[in-house]
Amino acid sequence: MPSARTLYGNAASIFAGDWLLVDALRRVRAADMPDVLVRLLDIIDEMIFAEAIQLENRGRIDARMRTYMQVVEGKTAALFRWAMFAGARAGGLPPDACKALEEYGLHLGVAFQLIDDHLDYAGDGSTIGKSPFTDLREGKMTHPVIVALERDPSLRLVLEELVASPADEVPEEAKSRLLSVLNRTGALESTRELASRKADAACLALGGLPESRARDALITVARATVHRES
Amino acid sequence: MPSARTLYGNAASIFAGDWLLVDALRRVRAADMPDVLVRLLDIIDEMIFAEAIQLENRGRIDARMRTYMQVVEGKTAALFRWAMFAGARAGGLPPDACKALEEYGLHLGVAFQLIDDHLDYAGDGSTIGKSPFTDLREGKMTHPVIVALERDPSLRLVLEELVASPADEVPEEAKSRLLSVLNRTGALESTRELASRKADAACLALGGLPESRARDALITVARATVHRES
Repeated sequence: MPSARTLYGNAASIFAGDWLLVDALRRVRAADMPDVLVRLLDIIDEMIFAEAIQLENRGRIDARMRTYMQVVEGKTAALFRWAMFAGARAGGLPPDACKALEEYGLHLGVAFQLIDDHLDYAGDGSTIGKSPFTDLREGKMTHPVIVALERDPSLRLVLEELVASPADEVPEEAKSRLLSVLNRTGALESTRELASRKADAACLALGGLPESRARDALITVARATVHRES
Repeated sequence: MPSARTLYGNAASIFAGDWLLVDALRRVRAADMPDVLVRLLDIIDEMIFAEAIQLENRGRIDARMRTYMQVVEGKTAALFRWAMFAGARAGGLPPDACKALEEYGLHLGVAFQLIDDHLDYAGDGSTIGKSPFTDLREGKMTHPVIVALERDPSLRLVLEELVASPADEVPEEAKSRLLSVLNRTGALESTRELASRKADAACLALGGLPESRARDALITVARATVHRES
């Protein structure tokens, strides 16, 4: 599926994003739970900061797992965390339960992002809706690539070639060399394993909550996140 | 002065804009005046709508004064309006006074924008910080251009040529023809006159407020707005 930017242009998609943001803020404000609004504003601030770190590092070929996790926790996971907190507060749960659900959101968000990264190389381009190598061509070092580079530093030259290539002329040889290193070093497998451990941590966070259909549903979601293929 | 987009790129300036917006919302929220926050969110919504109308009409050579005023009132003036309301509420003024100051803001905002439009053609490029014809090249029909087109429909061809020309090669002949029509039809003068009437309306809105140094200062601001040259 093409992005909004491709379909409607840069300006229109920025306005649409602004509008969605403001509309979300208005709805949350109208719900009249001041702490939920405060947290949302804090989280958006955190997301912008993480996005800025990502931008700052764009196109830099290196293997800093710390930067990667900082961006993932600040962007994807922060939003999952807030969503779980907001739901918990709206449902009138006690502070401990809100905290547990927030922790679930954090781990689930990281797991979700890891699988996203994994699918960029392992998925079928036609189902995930973006062509493989998208992240890399945008200069984003994702989890499997960082792991592979750690395990085989000679990958650097291939990555540099891929980042520098134009969108419609990604050199086939570099592509298949990257895929072969990702597989040979077990990097793709490691990404999926870490996602699986994060999903476990998400489920573990729910341990203190009473058994319920809702809790079972959240566990199902965490498990399914790791096994999604699109 | 070059824009943030030119200096830091598209992505960085979008994030900076998002951050400024969210930071402003956080500060307003922290001030703990719920209605001021609600109004700000409403106003931002209105501004995005006006920006969308402007975008929709970009590059369209026509003389719809109604669309122009809708955009100006929704963008520039809406923000002025909110700022006056917020200040009034923060100062603990009664509802009537808040309303009067909001009306002042609306008229002042329109006057400010009209002078901005005027300076795009009458100002000295080196002081206003943007080269003349900027608005037009971005496909924005501003007040003096709409008035001139109403008074001399043959201007359309010149405008079409200017909108279509690349940034660094604006044809000199079309430029000077536009300037001559803007002057000959009295369009620039009409824009300044309307700005002056709007500034009068802004001052009139303050009529019901008690005499004070603050009221005098606002009147001075309105007058100065019409006479600024950069």
